[in-house]
Amino acid sequence: MTDTTSIALLGGTGDIGEGLAIRWAYHTDHRVIVGSRDADRAQDKADEYRAALAERDVDGTIEAAANPDAAAEAAVIVLSIPPAYVVDTVERLGDRFGDAIIVTPAVAMDRDGEGFHYDPPAEGSVTAAVAAAAPPETPVVGAFHNLPAATLADLDADLDADTAVLGDDADAKATVRRLTEAIDGLGTADAGGIANAPEVEGVTPLLINIALHDEERHHVGVRFT
Amino acid sequence: MTDTTSIALLGGTGDIGEGLAIRWAYHTDHRVIVGSRDADRAQDKADEYRAALAERDVDGTIEAAANPDAAAEAAVIVLSIPPAYVVDTVERLGDRFGDAIIVTPAVAMDRDGEGFHYDPPAEGSVTAAVAAAAPPETPVVGAFHNLPAATLADLDADLDADTAVLGDDADAKATVRRLTEAIDGLGTADAGGIANAPEVEGVTPLLINIALHDEERHHVGVRFT
Repeated sequence: MTDTTSIALLGGTGDIGEGLAIRWAYHTDHRVIVGSRDADRAQDKADEYRAALAERDVDGTIEAAANPDAAAEAAVIVLSIPPAYVVDTVERLGDRFGDAIIVTPAVAMDRDGEGFHYDPPAEGSVTAAVAAAAPPETPVVGAFHNLPAATLADLDADLDADTAVLGDDADAKATVRRLTEAIDGLGTADAGGIANAPEVEGVTPLLINIALHDEERHHVGVRFT
Repeated sequence: MTDTTSIALLGGTGDIGEGLAIRWAYHTDHRVIVGSRDADRAQDKADEYRAALAERDVDGTIEAAANPDAAAEAAVIVLSIPPAYVVDTVERLGDRFGDAIIVTPAVAMDRDGEGFHYDPPAEGSVTAAVAAAAPPETPVVGAFHNLPAATLADLDADLDADTAVLGDDADAKATVRRLTEAIDGLGTADAGGIANAPEVEGVTPLLINIALHDEERHHVGVRFT
Protein backbone atom coordinates (compact mmCIF):
# COMPACT_ATOMS: atom_id res chain seq x y z
CA MET A 1 0.00 0.00 0.00
CA THR A 2 1.31 3.40 -0.86
CA ASP A 3 0.45 6.26 1.41
CA THR A 4 1.34 9.32 -0.62
CA THR A 5 0.60 12.83 0.53
CA SER A 6 0.62 15.83 -1.78
CA ILE A 7 2.76 18.52 -0.14
CA ALA A 8 2.94 22.08 -1.48
CA LEU A 9 5.79 24.35 -0.46
CA LEU A 10 4.55 27.89 -1.11
CA GLY A 11 7.54 30.13 -1.49
CA GLY A 12 9.42 26.87 -1.94
CA THR A 13 12.12 28.62 -3.88
CA GLY A 14 14.30 29.54 -0.93
CA ASP A 15 15.28 28.95 2.65
CA ILE A 16 13.43 26.21 4.53
CA GLY A 17 11.09 25.48 1.60
CA GLU A 18 13.98 24.46 -0.64
CA GLY A 19 15.35 22.07 1.95
CA LEU A 20 12.00 20.48 2.71
CA ALA A 21 11.22 20.03 -1.01
CA ILE A 22 14.55 18.34 -1.66
CA ARG A 23 14.43 16.18 1.47
CA TRP A 24 10.86 14.99 0.97
CA ALA A 25 11.62 14.15 -2.65
CA TYR A 26 14.86 12.38 -1.66
CA HIS A 27 13.73 10.42 1.39
CA THR A 28 10.03 9.74 0.66
CA ASP A 29 7.51 8.95 -2.04
CA HIS A 30 5.35 11.94 -1.24
CA ARG A 31 4.27 14.21 -4.05
CA VAL A 32 6.17 17.49 -3.77
CA ILE A 33 4.89 20.68 -5.41
CA VAL A 34 7.09 23.78 -5.38
CA GLY A 35 5.00 26.94 -5.40
CA SER A 36 6.03 30.49 -6.18
CA ARG A 37 4.26 33.72 -7.02
CA ASP A 38 5.73 33.22 -10.50
CA ALA A 39 5.04 29.81 -12.11
CA ASP A 40 8.18 30.03 -14.29
CA ARG A 41 10.35 30.63 -11.23
CA ALA A 42 8.73 27.65 -9.51
CA GLN A 43 9.52 25.52 -12.57
CA ASP A 44 13.16 26.68 -12.65
CA LYS A 45 13.57 25.77 -9.00
CA ALA A 46 11.84 22.41 -9.36
CA ASP A 47 14.20 21.64 -12.26
CA GLU A 48 17.19 22.66 -10.12
CA TYR A 49 16.07 20.46 -7.21
CA ARG A 50 15.43 17.51 -9.54
CA ALA A 51 18.93 17.91 -10.95
CA ALA A 52 20.37 17.72 -7.42
CA LEU A 53 18.44 14.49 -6.90
CA ALA A 54 19.46 13.06 -10.30
CA GLU A 55 23.13 13.53 -9.31
CA ARG A 56 22.38 11.00 -6.59
CA ASP A 57 20.50 8.70 -8.98
CA VAL A 58 17.19 9.56 -7.35
CA ASP A 59 14.26 10.18 -9.67
CA GLY A 60 12.49 12.52 -7.28
CA THR A 61 9.09 13.76 -8.28
CA ILE A 62 9.05 17.53 -7.87
CA GLU A 63 6.30 19.47 -9.57
CA ALA A 64 5.94 23.22 -9.93
CA ALA A 65 3.02 25.64 -9.95
CA ALA A 66 2.00 29.18 -9.13
CA ASN A 67 1.13 29.42 -5.44
CA PRO A 68 -2.70 29.31 -5.85
CA ASP A 69 -2.54 26.18 -8.03
CA ALA A 70 0.00 24.51 -5.73
CA ALA A 71 -2.26 25.20 -2.75
CA ALA A 72 -5.33 23.80 -4.49
CA GLU A 73 -3.51 20.53 -5.28
CA ALA A 74 -2.09 19.77 -1.86
CA ALA A 75 -3.22 18.05 1.34
CA VAL A 76 -0.42 19.76 3.28
CA ILE A 77 0.68 23.33 2.49
CA VAL A 78 3.91 24.70 3.98
CA LEU A 79 4.08 28.51 4.05
CA SER A 80 7.78 29.06 3.46
CA ILE A 81 7.19 32.77 3.13
CA PRO A 82 8.82 35.78 4.89
CA PRO A 83 6.88 36.59 8.08
CA ALA A 84 5.87 40.04 6.80
CA TYR A 85 3.92 38.43 3.92
CA VAL A 86 2.60 35.22 5.40
CA VAL A 87 -0.71 36.55 6.75
CA ASP A 88 -1.42 38.37 3.49
CA THR A 89 -0.74 35.17 1.56
CA VAL A 90 -3.12 33.20 3.76
CA GLU A 91 -5.85 35.80 3.25
CA ARG A 92 -5.40 35.83 -0.52
CA LEU A 93 -5.24 32.04 -0.96
CA GLY A 94 -7.67 30.99 1.76
CA ASP A 95 -10.33 29.85 -0.71
CA ARG A 96 -7.83 27.33 -2.12
CA PHE A 97 -7.06 25.69 1.21
CA GLY A 98 -10.25 23.76 2.01
CA ASP A 99 -9.41 21.16 4.65
CA ALA A 100 -5.73 20.99 3.71
CA ILE A 101 -3.31 21.39 6.61
CA ILE A 102 -1.48 24.72 6.68
CA VAL A 103 2.03 24.55 8.18
CA THR A 104 3.74 27.77 9.22
CA PRO A 105 7.51 27.88 9.90
CA ALA A 106 7.81 31.69 9.89
CA VAL A 107 9.35 33.62 12.79
CA ALA A 108 9.30 37.39 13.26
CA MET A 109 12.59 38.76 14.58
CA ASP A 110 14.47 41.97 14.97
CA ARG A 111 18.15 42.41 15.70
CA ASP A 112 20.47 44.60 17.71
CA GLY A 113 24.24 44.69 18.03
CA GLU A 114 24.33 41.53 20.12
CA GLY A 115 22.01 39.28 18.13
CA PHE A 116 18.51 38.43 17.01
CA HIS A 117 15.41 38.75 19.15
CA TYR A 118 11.91 37.37 18.95
CA ASP A 119 9.47 40.09 17.91
CA PRO A 120 6.01 38.54 17.67
CA PRO A 121 2.99 40.18 16.04
CA ALA A 122 0.03 41.47 18.05
CA GLU A 123 -1.62 38.03 17.94
CA GLY A 124 1.22 36.71 20.16
CA SER A 125 2.94 34.58 17.54
CA VAL A 126 3.12 34.18 13.78
CA THR A 127 1.37 30.83 14.17
CA ALA A 128 -1.54 32.49 15.98
CA ALA A 129 -1.71 35.22 13.31
CA VAL A 130 -1.84 32.59 10.55
CA ALA A 131 -4.55 30.67 12.43
CA ALA A 132 -6.58 33.86 12.79
CA ALA A 133 -6.31 34.54 9.04
CA ALA A 134 -6.98 30.97 7.83
CA PRO A 135 -10.49 29.71 6.97
CA PRO A 136 -12.20 27.99 9.93
CA GLU A 137 -12.14 24.58 8.21
CA THR A 138 -8.37 24.73 7.62
CA PRO A 139 -6.22 23.35 10.45
CA VAL A 140 -3.01 25.27 11.19
CA VAL A 141 0.18 23.64 12.48
CA GLY A 142 3.40 25.40 13.51
CA ALA A 143 6.57 23.48 12.62
CA PHE A 144 10.06 23.67 11.10
CA HIS A 145 10.96 26.93 12.89
CA ASN A 146 14.13 25.53 14.40
CA LEU A 147 15.58 23.51 11.52
CA PRO A 148 18.97 24.54 10.13
CA ALA A 149 17.95 25.58 6.59
CA ALA A 150 21.37 25.29 4.97
CA THR A 151 21.92 21.78 6.33
CA LEU A 152 18.42 20.76 5.30
CA ALA A 153 19.05 21.83 1.69
CA ASP A 154 22.44 20.08 1.48
CA LEU A 155 21.97 16.39 0.73
CA ASP A 156 25.66 15.83 1.52
CA ALA A 157 25.05 16.96 5.11
CA ASP A 158 23.77 14.55 7.74
CA LEU A 159 20.70 15.95 9.42
CA ASP A 160 20.54 15.65 13.20
CA ALA A 161 17.68 17.81 14.40
CA ASP A 162 14.23 17.87 15.94
CA THR A 163 11.47 20.32 15.25
CA ALA A 164 8.88 21.28 17.84
CA VAL A 165 5.37 20.94 16.41
CA LEU A 166 2.31 22.89 17.56
CA GLY A 167 -1.36 22.81 16.75
CA ASP A 168 -4.87 22.77 18.11
CA ASP A 169 -5.96 19.96 15.73
CA ALA A 170 -4.47 16.68 16.96
CA ASP A 171 -4.91 14.82 13.65
CA ALA A 172 -3.26 17.60 11.66
CA LYS A 173 -0.37 17.73 14.12
CA ALA A 174 0.07 13.96 13.91
CA THR A 175 0.14 14.12 10.10
CA VAL A 176 2.85 16.79 10.11
CA ARG A 177 4.89 14.83 12.66
CA ARG A 178 4.63 11.67 10.55
CA LEU A 179 5.68 13.49 7.36
CA THR A 180 8.61 15.11 9.18
CA GLU A 181 9.86 11.87 10.70
CA ALA A 182 9.88 10.29 7.24
CA ILE A 183 12.99 12.39 6.53
CA ASP A 184 16.19 10.68 7.76
CA GLY A 185 17.75 12.55 10.65
CA LEU A 186 14.68 14.61 11.51
CA GLY A 187 12.55 14.12 14.60
CA THR A 188 9.69 15.98 16.22
CA ALA A 189 8.51 17.00 19.66
CA ASP A 190 4.93 17.86 20.57
CA ALA A 191 4.91 21.33 22.13
CA GLY A 192 1.13 21.52 22.57
CA GLY A 193 -1.36 23.97 21.12
CA ILE A 194 -0.99 27.25 19.26
CA ALA A 195 -1.04 29.18 22.55
CA ASN A 196 2.46 27.75 23.11
CA ALA A 197 3.83 29.05 19.79
CA PRO A 198 5.85 31.99 21.22
CA GLU A 199 8.12 29.56 23.07
CA VAL A 200 8.70 27.57 19.86
CA GLU A 201 9.18 30.51 17.51
CA GLY A 202 11.57 32.10 20.03
CA VAL A 203 14.08 29.28 19.58
CA THR A 204 14.97 30.48 16.08
CA PRO A 205 16.74 33.69 17.19
CA LEU A 206 18.54 31.68 19.90
CA LEU A 207 19.93 29.28 17.30
CA ILE A 208 21.06 32.20 15.14
CA ASN A 209 22.69 33.84 18.18
CA ILE A 210 24.59 30.63 18.93
CA ALA A 211 25.71 30.46 15.29
CA LEU A 212 26.92 34.08 15.60
CA HIS A 213 28.76 33.68 18.92
CA ASP A 214 29.83 30.05 19.33
CA GLU A 215 33.06 29.48 17.43
CA GLU A 216 32.40 25.75 17.12
CA ARG A 217 28.85 25.95 15.80
CA HIS A 218 27.66 27.42 12.50
CA HIS A 219 24.44 25.85 11.21
CA VAL A 220 22.73 25.20 14.52
CA GLY A 221 19.85 22.83 15.07
CA VAL A 222 18.39 21.33 18.20
CA ARG A 223 17.64 17.89 19.60
CA PHE A 224 15.20 17.52 22.48
CA THR A 225 16.72 14.88 24.76
CA MET B 1 48.52 20.44 39.23
CA THR B 2 45.09 20.72 40.73
CA ASP B 3 42.83 23.42 39.45
CA THR B 4 40.10 23.60 42.05
CA THR B 5 37.37 26.21 41.99
CA SER B 6 35.16 26.99 44.98
CA ILE B 7 31.55 26.92 43.80
CA ALA B 8 28.68 28.08 46.00
CA LEU B 9 25.13 27.04 45.22
CA LEU B 10 22.90 29.59 46.94
CA GLY B 11 19.50 28.05 47.43
CA GLY B 12 21.32 24.80 46.70
CA THR B 13 18.74 22.84 48.62
CA GLY B 14 16.36 22.30 45.72
CA ASP B 15 15.83 22.11 42.00
CA ILE B 16 18.81 22.88 39.77
CA GLY B 17 21.10 23.71 42.73
CA GLU B 18 20.78 20.21 44.14
CA GLY B 19 21.67 18.61 40.82
CA LEU B 20 24.64 20.87 40.20
CA ALA B 21 26.00 20.31 43.72
CA ILE B 22 25.77 16.53 43.39
CA ARG B 23 27.17 16.44 39.87
CA TRP B 24 30.12 18.74 40.58
CA ALA B 25 30.97 16.73 43.68
CA TYR B 26 30.61 13.46 41.77
CA HIS B 27 32.37 14.29 38.52
CA THR B 28 34.99 16.86 39.58
CA ASP B 29 37.39 17.88 42.35
CA HIS B 30 35.89 21.32 42.70
CA ARG B 31 34.96 22.56 46.16
CA VAL B 32 31.17 22.60 46.46
CA ILE B 33 29.41 24.74 49.06
CA VAL B 34 25.66 24.37 49.52
CA GLY B 35 24.10 27.62 50.70
CA SER B 36 20.71 28.23 52.23
CA ARG B 37 19.06 31.03 54.16
CA ASP B 38 19.22 28.63 57.11
CA ALA B 39 22.68 27.14 57.87
CA ASP B 40 21.19 24.03 59.49
CA ARG B 41 19.10 23.32 56.44
CA ALA B 42 22.16 23.73 54.24
CA GLN B 43 24.00 21.24 56.48
CA ASP B 44 21.14 18.70 56.29
CA LYS B 45 21.13 18.91 52.52
CA ALA B 46 24.92 18.68 52.23
CA ASP B 47 24.77 15.54 54.43
CA GLU B 48 22.04 14.12 52.19
CA TYR B 49 24.02 14.78 49.01
CA ARG B 50 27.19 13.29 50.55
CA ALA B 51 25.23 10.16 51.45
CA ALA B 52 24.12 9.81 47.82
CA LEU B 53 27.75 10.04 46.76
CA ALA B 54 28.92 7.61 49.46
CA GLU B 55 26.48 5.01 48.09
CA ARG B 56 28.60 5.17 44.94
CA ASP B 57 31.86 5.01 46.89
CA VAL B 58 32.63 8.63 46.08
CA ASP B 59 33.99 10.76 48.89
CA GLY B 60 32.59 13.99 47.50
CA THR B 61 33.46 17.16 49.30
CA ILE B 62 30.26 19.09 49.93
CA GLU B 63 30.33 21.86 52.50
CA ALA B 64 27.42 23.84 53.89
CA ALA B 65 26.92 27.43 55.01
CA ALA B 66 24.36 30.16 55.31
CA ASN B 67 24.05 32.03 52.00
CA PRO B 68 26.22 35.06 52.94
CA ASP B 69 29.09 32.86 54.16
CA ALA B 70 28.81 30.55 51.15
CA ALA B 71 28.96 33.58 48.86
CA ALA B 72 32.01 35.02 50.60
CA GLU B 73 33.92 31.73 50.20
CA ALA B 74 33.30 31.10 46.53
CA ALA B 75 34.85 32.09 43.20
CA VAL B 76 31.66 31.09 41.37
CA ILE B 77 28.21 31.63 42.89
CA VAL B 78 25.15 29.98 41.34
CA LEU B 79 21.86 31.67 42.27
CA SER B 80 19.54 28.67 42.39
CA ILE B 81 16.78 30.82 43.80
CA PRO B 82 13.16 31.36 42.69
CA PRO B 83 12.99 34.22 40.17
CA ALA B 84 10.84 36.36 42.46
CA TYR B 85 13.64 36.47 45.07
CA VAL B 86 16.79 36.46 43.00
CA VAL B 87 17.21 40.22 42.58
CA ASP B 88 16.54 40.81 46.28
CA THR B 89 19.17 38.19 47.16
CA VAL B 90 21.74 39.86 44.91
CA GLU B 91 21.06 43.24 46.50
CA ARG B 92 21.38 41.85 50.04
CA LEU B 93 24.52 39.79 49.41
CA GLY B 94 26.26 42.08 46.94
CA ASP B 95 28.98 43.10 49.39
CA ARG B 96 30.00 39.43 49.68
CA PHE B 97 30.47 38.91 45.95
CA GLY B 98 33.64 40.88 45.15
CA ASP B 99 34.98 39.65 41.82
CA ALA B 100 33.34 36.24 42.11
CA ILE B 101 31.32 35.18 39.07
CA ILE B 102 27.55 35.23 39.60
CA VAL B 103 25.63 32.62 37.60
CA THR B 104 21.88 33.00 37.19
CA PRO B 105 19.72 30.07 36.02
CA ALA B 106 16.35 31.63 37.00
CA VAL B 107 13.49 32.03 34.52
CA ALA B 108 10.28 33.99 35.09
CA MET B 109 7.22 32.23 33.71
CA ASP B 110 3.48 32.29 33.91
CA ARG B 111 1.07 29.61 32.77
CA ASP B 112 -2.28 29.24 31.09
CA GLY B 113 -4.39 26.20 30.24
CA GLU B 114 -2.08 25.18 27.38
CA GLY B 115 1.31 25.53 29.02
CA PHE B 116 4.03 27.76 30.40
CA HIS B 117 5.06 31.08 28.92
CA TYR B 118 8.08 33.30 29.28
CA ASP B 119 7.23 36.36 31.35
CA PRO B 120 10.37 38.47 31.69
CA PRO B 121 10.83 41.33 34.15
CA ALA B 122 10.99 44.96 33.03
CA GLU B 123 14.76 44.69 32.49
CA GLY B 124 14.04 42.29 29.57
CA SER B 125 15.33 39.12 31.24
CA VAL B 126 16.13 37.79 34.69
CA THR B 127 19.80 37.75 33.68
CA ALA B 128 19.66 41.47 32.85
CA ALA B 129 17.86 42.19 36.15
CA VAL B 130 20.56 40.31 38.09
CA ALA B 131 23.28 42.17 36.20
CA ALA B 132 21.63 45.50 37.03
CA ALA B 133 21.49 44.58 40.74
CA ALA B 134 25.01 43.13 41.03
CA PRO B 135 28.03 45.23 42.06
CA PRO B 136 29.91 46.63 39.04
CA GLU B 137 33.01 44.51 39.76
CA THR B 138 31.00 41.27 39.79
CA PRO B 139 30.60 39.57 36.39
CA VAL B 140 27.21 37.99 35.70
CA VAL B 141 26.71 34.90 33.55
CA GLY B 142 23.40 33.30 32.54
CA ALA B 143 23.49 29.50 32.39
CA PHE B 144 21.73 26.25 33.36
CA HIS B 145 18.26 27.52 32.38
CA ASN B 146 17.55 24.61 30.10
CA LEU B 147 18.90 21.67 32.07
CA PRO B 148 16.49 18.94 33.15
CA ALA B 149 16.67 19.34 36.95
CA ALA B 150 15.38 15.89 37.89
CA THR B 151 17.83 14.14 35.58
CA LEU B 152 20.67 16.31 36.82
CA ALA B 153 19.99 15.33 40.44
CA ASP B 154 19.71 11.60 39.66
CA LEU B 155 23.17 10.03 39.46
CA ASP B 156 21.59 6.89 37.99
CA ALA B 157 20.42 8.90 34.98
CA ASP B 158 22.71 9.54 32.02
CA LEU B 159 22.89 13.23 31.28
CA ASP B 160 22.66 14.21 27.62
CA ALA B 161 22.15 17.97 27.49
CA ASP B 162 23.68 21.30 26.56
CA THR B 163 23.17 24.60 28.30
CA ALA B 164 23.32 27.92 26.49
CA VAL B 165 25.67 30.32 28.29
CA LEU B 166 25.46 34.12 28.20
CA GLY B 167 27.56 36.93 29.50
CA ASP B 168 29.23 40.23 28.73
CA ASP B 169 32.51 39.17 30.42
CA ALA B 170 34.29 36.71 28.14
CA ASP B 171 36.58 35.31 30.86
CA ALA B 172 33.70 34.70 33.25
CA LYS B 173 31.70 33.01 30.50
CA ALA B 174 34.67 30.79 29.62
CA THR B 175 35.07 29.79 33.29
CA VAL B 176 31.41 28.78 33.57
CA ARG B 177 31.61 26.82 30.31
CA ARG B 178 34.72 24.98 31.53
CA LEU B 179 33.11 24.09 34.88
CA THR B 180 29.95 22.90 33.13
CA GLU B 181 31.79 20.72 30.63
CA ALA B 182 33.61 19.03 33.50
CA ILE B 183 30.34 17.23 34.25
CA ASP B 184 29.92 14.06 32.14
CA GLY B 185 27.09 14.41 29.65
CA LEU B 186 26.85 18.20 29.85
CA GLY B 187 27.90 20.57 27.10
CA THR B 188 27.60 24.28 26.49
CA ALA B 189 26.83 26.68 23.67
CA ASP B 190 27.84 30.34 23.58
CA ALA B 191 24.69 32.42 23.04
CA GLY B 192 26.45 35.79 23.23
CA GLY B 193 25.92 38.66 25.66
CA ILE B 194 23.26 39.41 28.24
CA ALA B 195 21.16 41.25 25.63
CA ASN B 196 20.44 37.79 24.20
CA ALA B 197 19.14 36.37 27.48
CA PRO B 198 15.42 36.45 26.60
CA GLU B 199 15.97 33.89 23.84
CA VAL B 200 17.83 31.59 26.28
CA GLU B 201 15.47 31.95 29.22
CA GLY B 202 12.50 31.39 26.89
CA VAL B 203 13.62 27.82 26.18
CA THR B 204 12.68 26.71 29.69
CA PRO B 205 8.91 27.04 29.23
CA LEU B 206 9.24 25.31 25.85
CA LEU B 207 10.92 22.30 27.46
CA ILE B 208 8.21 22.15 30.13
CA ASN B 209 5.53 22.38 27.42
CA ILE B 210 7.10 19.48 25.56
CA ALA B 211 7.21 17.47 28.81
CA LEU B 212 3.50 18.25 29.31
CA HIS B 213 2.36 17.41 25.77
CA ASP B 214 4.79 14.91 24.24
CA GLU B 215 3.87 11.42 25.40
CA GLU B 216 7.39 10.12 24.79
CA ARG B 217 9.28 12.84 26.64
CA HIS B 218 9.17 13.65 30.35
CA HIS B 219 12.38 15.25 31.63
CA VAL B 220 13.31 17.27 28.58
CA GLY B 221 16.72 18.72 27.86
CA VAL B 222 18.24 20.06 24.70
CA ARG B 223 21.32 19.45 22.56
CA PHE B 224 22.47 22.08 20.09
CA THR B 225 23.55 20.17 16.98
